[in-house]
Amino acid sequence: MTISDERSRLAVIRDLFGAQSSAATDMHLVIGVQGQDDCAVYDLPGNLSLVIGSDFVRGTGFALFQEGLLSYFDIGYYLVVANLSDIAAMGATPTGLTTVIRYPDFLSDADFRQLVLGIKEAAALYQTPIVGGDIGGYSEMVLAATAFGITERGKYLSRQGTRVGDFLCTTGTLGLPSTALAYFTKAKKQGFLLSAEEEQLLLNSWRRPVAHISSGIALAQSGFVHACQDVSDGAKATIEQLAQASSLSFEVFEAQLPLSPITYKVAEALRADPISLAFSASVDFQLMFTVNQESLDLLRALEPLAGVALLGQAIPVSEPSRLIRNSGQPSPIPGTAWNQQRKNVVDVILEGY
Amino acid sequence: MTISDERSRLAVIRDLFGAQSSAATDMHLVIGVQGQDDCAVYDLPGNLSLVIGSDFVRGTGFALFQEGLLSYFDIGYYLVVANLSDIAAMGATPTGLTTVIRYPDFLSDADFRQLVLGIKEAAALYQTPIVGGDIGGYSEMVLAATAFGITERGKYLSRQGTRVGDFLCTTGTLGLPSTALAYFTKAKKQGFLLSAEEEQLLLNSWRRPVAHISSGIALAQSGFVHACQDVSDGAKATIEQLAQASSLSFEVFEAQLPLSPITYKVAEALRADPISLAFSASVDFQLMFTVNQESLDLLRALEPLAGVALLGQAIPVSEPSRLIRNSGQPSPIPGTAWNQQRKNVVDVILEGY
Repeated sequence: MTISDERSRLAVIRDLFGAQSSAATDMHLVIGVQGQDDCAVYDLPGNLSLVIGSDFVRGTGFALFQEGLLSYFDIGYYLVVANLSDIAAMGATPTGLTTVIRYPDFLSDADFRQLVLGIKEAAALYQTPIVGGDIGGYSEMVLAATAFGITERGKYLSRQGTRVGDFLCTTGTLGLPSTALAYFTKAKKQGFLLSAEEEQLLLNSWRRPVAHISSGIALAQSGFVHACQDVSDGAKATIEQLAQASSLSFEVFEAQLPLSPITYKVAEALRADPISLAFSASVDFQLMFTVNQESLDLLRALEPLAGVALLGQAIPVSEPSRLIRNSGQPSPIPGTAWNQQRKNVVDVILEGY
Repeated sequence: MTISDERSRLAVIRDLFGAQSSAATDMHLVIGVQGQDDCAVYDLPGNLSLVIGSDFVRGTGFALFQEGLLSYFDIGYYLVVANLSDIAAMGATPTGLTTVIRYPDFLSDADFRQLVLGIKEAAALYQTPIVGGDIGGYSEMVLAATAFGITERGKYLSRQGTRVGDFLCTTGTLGLPSTALAYFTKAKKQGFLLSAEEEQLLLNSWRRPVAHISSGIALAQSGFVHACQDVSDGAKATIEQLAQASSLSFEVFEAQLPLSPITYKVAEALRADPISLAFSASVDFQLMFTVNQESLDLLRALEPLAGVALLGQAIPVSEPSRLIRNSGQPSPIPGTAWNQQRKNVVDVILEGY
């Protein structure tokens, strides 16, 4: 019996769903599964494009939930943000969400209510109504949702379109969620202690993640951005996916990486590489995008994009993607790719140092 | 610790999601969670309405899957039809689907491929592309999807709008899926045998369910239909929901019910009430709808609606919904409501005879 990894199975999906027909003519499919984008895109009458995407979240399976550091409210909130982040990655304005909530027999009314309140709070914060879905029992907790939104026709972002020489940027700090995992499930148990404020910052990367909707809209409307996706599989995976989508490579510079000082502290305590810690399976929900060099300063002048960080630039595909260390030495992009996460994620991150 | 049933928890959802605001103006929410409809509805520019709904299916948890009578291909096919049936219930033309596929570690490549092929075959049959979704591992199999489609603006069906005196109809036979459950998990094991053709008919109600897309479109375009939903919780539950949505009751007549002769045979073998068997938790995916009396014959003249069956009619809410037996005796609508299904569904159906 063969059991492949997720990457191979995504290829099955792409092959099988790559050539399908549609009966409807008023709603024209522009991006389907072939793009492997964060959302599908349809063109609609009235100068609109509709974007739509679905995400499952592990919720009660999160290591920090199992450690008692996340509540049912938190995982409900997370479900909404994870789905809205895909809308942000397309540069769209969210217009609604449907949710699938399936729960095991033992889930109490109080916990169920907290879960739904978390969903409601995040949806209200992003002014995006929950318009339907599915609710009922199951053997395990199931939390999934579909988010959809609109852009001016054709004014959406996608993963393709980067050109050699483009700057590679993110909307902000990378690596807090994986640092939180490494700290709370490993370093703290070994006796290393951060301050209460630092702990709070790490926890909030899971409890109150941010969907960068305003940034996505600003990036799309600027007209300067060539490609974009959200960092939901870690920065290493995101860089690889952006590279593959445009058949090129990226060179990133250690000196410029938007890492938190907390990541360096935790990495030191665990004798780990801070960049590998930050780049591995860290669900940052930052937007990572490419822009032609001359336009970066113009982008930063847009209010939601003041915090944009420059990581590096696109290079020809003939060279492999690489990190330039502060020493000047090149290395492969550090981190653990997203399809190797069947093991404990922290063990994977810390492997091989 | 309090653990309520699904009906109570749906009320929590309705209360919490009943008054939300939306930022987008080009996509106007017409029906959200308050309607408890099969789908949410948005009005769009260009004389279009968009309908969207999400459904989870148990798949590997189906009793017939566990009996070895359904394959991974079958449950993939079922996932698509279950979601398209909600589009049918709104009278819409489907334009796309997103799918969430999460699988346990032990799922082989061959089974995964069969699952995806089942999804692909059903999607192709209904000319509805799979445009995205989420795929990965989890502790249990998770199969969920979101289907969406369009109608001419305002020309969608909903659960509300039945008037006293309206005829209550369905697009066809009720009760085959619950008969299949009762036969394969109970009657056959007790030695009662149907013919090979009868067994095939029962199995196909699970293996190749039908989303009544053409019927839904014809019902919506006729202009005669007052309310509609799909029979995905069993006929008893559907009648109750249609009654509640329009604050009235229904009288149905045993003599007119569109039940299969196989249902009568299996019920007799199990010494059960055939109507209760057919009306309980049977996921028929037929459309159940109401229409003013004068228009029924006109509807039946439309090609996809030739098989429409008349069950009964709407009566004032001051009287309870009832079944008129062939003897002339009234009784409550038989069957087991959908929120009592945590126990083995067949045991519940057969309880209390």
